[in-house]
Amino acid sequence: MTPTPSIAERLNVDIDRIHELADRLLPFYTDIQPGGSLADERLNGYLNELTRTLHELHPADMAAVLESLPLQERVLAWKLAAPEDDGDVLLEVSDAVRETLIESMGNQELLAAVEDMDADDLAELADDLPHQVIAEVLQTRDEEERAQVQAAMSFADDQVGAIMDFELLSIRADVTCEVVLRYLRRFDSLPDHTDKIFVVDDHDILQGVLPIRRLLIADPDELVEHIMARDVVRFHPEDDTEEAAQAFERYDLVTAPVIDADGKLIGRLTVDEMVDVIREETEADMLNMAGLQEEEDLFAPVFDSVKNRWMWLAINLCTAFLASRVIGAFEGSIEKIVALAALMPIVAGIGGNSGNQTITMIVRAMAMGQLTGSQAIHLLKKEVSVALVNGLIWGGVMGLVAWLLYDSPGIGLVMVAAMTLNLLLAATVGVLIPVIMDKCGRDPALGSSVLITAVTDSGGFLIFLGLATVFLL
Amino acid sequence: MTPTPSIAERLNVDIDRIHELADRLLPFYTDIQPGGSLADERLNGYLNELTRTLHELHPADMAAVLESLPLQERVLAWKLAAPEDDGDVLLEVSDAVRETLIESMGNQELLAAVEDMDADDLAELADDLPHQVIAEVLQTRDEEERAQVQAAMSFADDQVGAIMDFELLSIRADVTCEVVLRYLRRFDSLPDHTDKIFVVDDHDILQGVLPIRRLLIADPDELVEHIMARDVVRFHPEDDTEEAAQAFERYDLVTAPVIDADGKLIGRLTVDEMVDVIREETEADMLNMAGLQEEEDLFAPVFDSVKNRWMWLAINLCTAFLASRVIGAFEGSIEKIVALAALMPIVAGIGGNSGNQTITMIVRAMAMGQLTGSQAIHLLKKEVSVALVNGLIWGGVMGLVAWLLYDSPGIGLVMVAAMTLNLLLAATVGVLIPVIMDKCGRDPALGSSVLITAVTDSGGFLIFLGLATVFLL
Repeated sequence: MTPTPSIAERLNVDIDRIHELADRLLPFYTDIQPGGSLADERLNGYLNELTRTLHELHPADMAAVLESLPLQERVLAWKLAAPEDDGDVLLEVSDAVRETLIESMGNQELLAAVEDMDADDLAELADDLPHQVIAEVLQTRDEEERAQVQAAMSFADDQVGAIMDFELLSIRADVTCEVVLRYLRRFDSLPDHTDKIFVVDDHDILQGVLPIRRLLIADPDELVEHIMARDVVRFHPEDDTEEAAQAFERYDLVTAPVIDADGKLIGRLTVDEMVDVIREETEADMLNMAGLQEEEDLFAPVFDSVKNRWMWLAINLCTAFLASRVIGAFEGSIEKIVALAALMPIVAGIGGNSGNQTITMIVRAMAMGQLTGSQAIHLLKKEVSVALVNGLIWGGVMGLVAWLLYDSPGIGLVMVAAMTLNLLLAATVGVLIPVIMDKCGRDPALGSSVLITAVTDSGGFLIFLGLATVFLL
Repeated sequence: MTPTPSIAERLNVDIDRIHELADRLLPFYTDIQPGGSLADERLNGYLNELTRTLHELHPADMAAVLESLPLQERVLAWKLAAPEDDGDVLLEVSDAVRETLIESMGNQELLAAVEDMDADDLAELADDLPHQVIAEVLQTRDEEERAQVQAAMSFADDQVGAIMDFELLSIRADVTCEVVLRYLRRFDSLPDHTDKIFVVDDHDILQGVLPIRRLLIADPDELVEHIMARDVVRFHPEDDTEEAAQAFERYDLVTAPVIDADGKLIGRLTVDEMVDVIREETEADMLNMAGLQEEEDLFAPVFDSVKNRWMWLAINLCTAFLASRVIGAFEGSIEKIVALAALMPIVAGIGGNSGNQTITMIVRAMAMGQLTGSQAIHLLKKEVSVALVNGLIWGGVMGLVAWLLYDSPGIGLVMVAAMTLNLLLAATVGVLIPVIMDKCGRDPALGSSVLITAVTDSGGFLIFLGLATVFLL
């Protein structure tokens, strides 16, 4: 084992080379068949290198490569990929990219890719697969697995039931550790991430868990019920996945049982799924704040991208139009003091920036479960104080600049006052928007950036032009 | 085991009640001692309830509670908390909150909190602890542990060496599984998250790993070298933690070995630390994009908050001033057509919004390692196409509105052209800023939102007022 370059380095090299090879081979797309060859020797060399490189990749790396390739190259690489990994790759890629891959596959290929899949994985893909493929693959399963797939599909994406795993080990409490060890040795392989064995009674009601760490150090004659843990973090299939992920994070879990309303063990959650939930959750917040509806395939067709972004752009246009009408109401003042037109974006801009700082901090705290309603008033006080300090400092600076620039102390004073007031407005609304969204059961991240900017723009123009009209004309 | 409310629900109830109790007890802060009582019977009831509630909390829950309490209440709750959990709570809270807790503790209390800590945990806290405390606690450790603490402290926060764990199990390759199982049984407890045992030679050089899952199903007479995995994801202490976290995510790891340049096993990474890295990384991106320098204690003193935010506000003011000067250059045009002043923020606003959508998507893709330099040109083409479509649609709408509003087809046409051009500018710069930042080795998220808004503001004003001056005057 020689020291190897870091994983990320190795992967980036692969992506660039794959991109290069795919780019060169793209003009001959129709001549290329998996396992086939090209007449031109140089091109055939490229084809062999590309195929070999792709076949060496771990399915998760293959997924990353596919996500970072432009559409046509992606389809070519997918065609050349090792078919035995197809199912794993489909499970690893993002939803948007998965669609493009499935579209490029025939029903027979899809069937081959999913036929050996576990029930929970099958359920995850089911929405994206053609009806016929699902129907055919379900026919090959036994009653229990069909029920599992259907159960998993009946939950929403953000419910524990949709991502739980049915593969698990369970034992009775009244056996010895020796018996458990012998029982385990009868398996060909144990489920991934097995860090604990679930202890159930005759009716499958969860009694506790036996951590493998305890099993390994226990006296072989010890009874399971004497060493099992009874106070166990457990979930219901209706639970929210984000809350489950927070519990995993907080209590450093690797797996946890899922039970139904009667306490019956029906599945388990594993940390690898929870890591994905955490990643997706924080990213969704980030995308939502910026006004993107969902995660987007980097190389999505133009029309798909337009669709993903149009709504917040439209809302932004409406709010911008409102701000424009606020200015329109003061056209008389601007005609008299044209300097106002040049200064007003400064007032609006600093409010937007400061409001975004406040709202980002709060959205984050809410996502972490750090903020409940009762502290909102404390937070508001603090944010207003920060805004006051910033307003006096930066308003003072800009007021001075405006005074010198337009040789008018009046304009300077109006700047100070308008900037301070708009920062106070930004702080207040920056706290209230997410708190109210949350109270209404909405996601506080959703378009919050667009909303706060709308308020600080219109508000900033109104405050500044209003003050100027009253005091300077 | 009766069905319990979901974990997040239970926790929120606790926080609200703790907040209420702490708020009532706060006026009597100086009279309150841990284990003491208050003369007033009602108040004493509150005190007992608060103390009991706090003592029942898991350290990770206690950390969450402390993070969500205003400063004074936090100090009170911390004073009443179970001292035996102090060390664990300090490790769980965010950096900003940790400072406030340590400040409220005496050296003796701190010493008691950290004296039983593992070397890696001690190293994590070391920067925040008073020198004297560190010196004293290190004196109680043996040579090896002192070396471990110092080694861990010598790495930067974003290096694997700073978060690796020294507690691990290692065995030789030439023993049987039976021997391994007997060896394990001699421990009082196994390290957390033990999903594999590391296999080393006589010089501690890593040979492979023995997954517990394989050990449990193996024939007891089988030699470790026959069933161990040799192709193992491993890390060096200098590796970047974010890349390590990506590898954990990609390959669904629970633990992984850390080796030095000679291949010698020196520590291990565990998935619970990696989950924290993933959470912190995506959050740092979100905060950085909004122009916050670092994670902020929700209830930080006003001055600390001002310090955390001033830099991007100052940069924003400079760019806003620049935009203001662009408008200033066209004061003559605005005096003649005052409608321009009202319409120009629409052009700037949609550019900013659209640019933020583009940049957010790209920052995210870069964080996931999906985007390498060679695809930038493809991405640019796509984003420019999206901008063109959006420009013609939304520019068309606003052009029509402007025409009707000001009864001037000229103004309408200038709106269409300016909005389209500003969207094209936003798309181009939205791709280029993160790509260039990344090429320069900078974090592409850093202030990207402020930068793109600066470009689309000044650019939007210039394009709109420039076109109007040329075509309408």
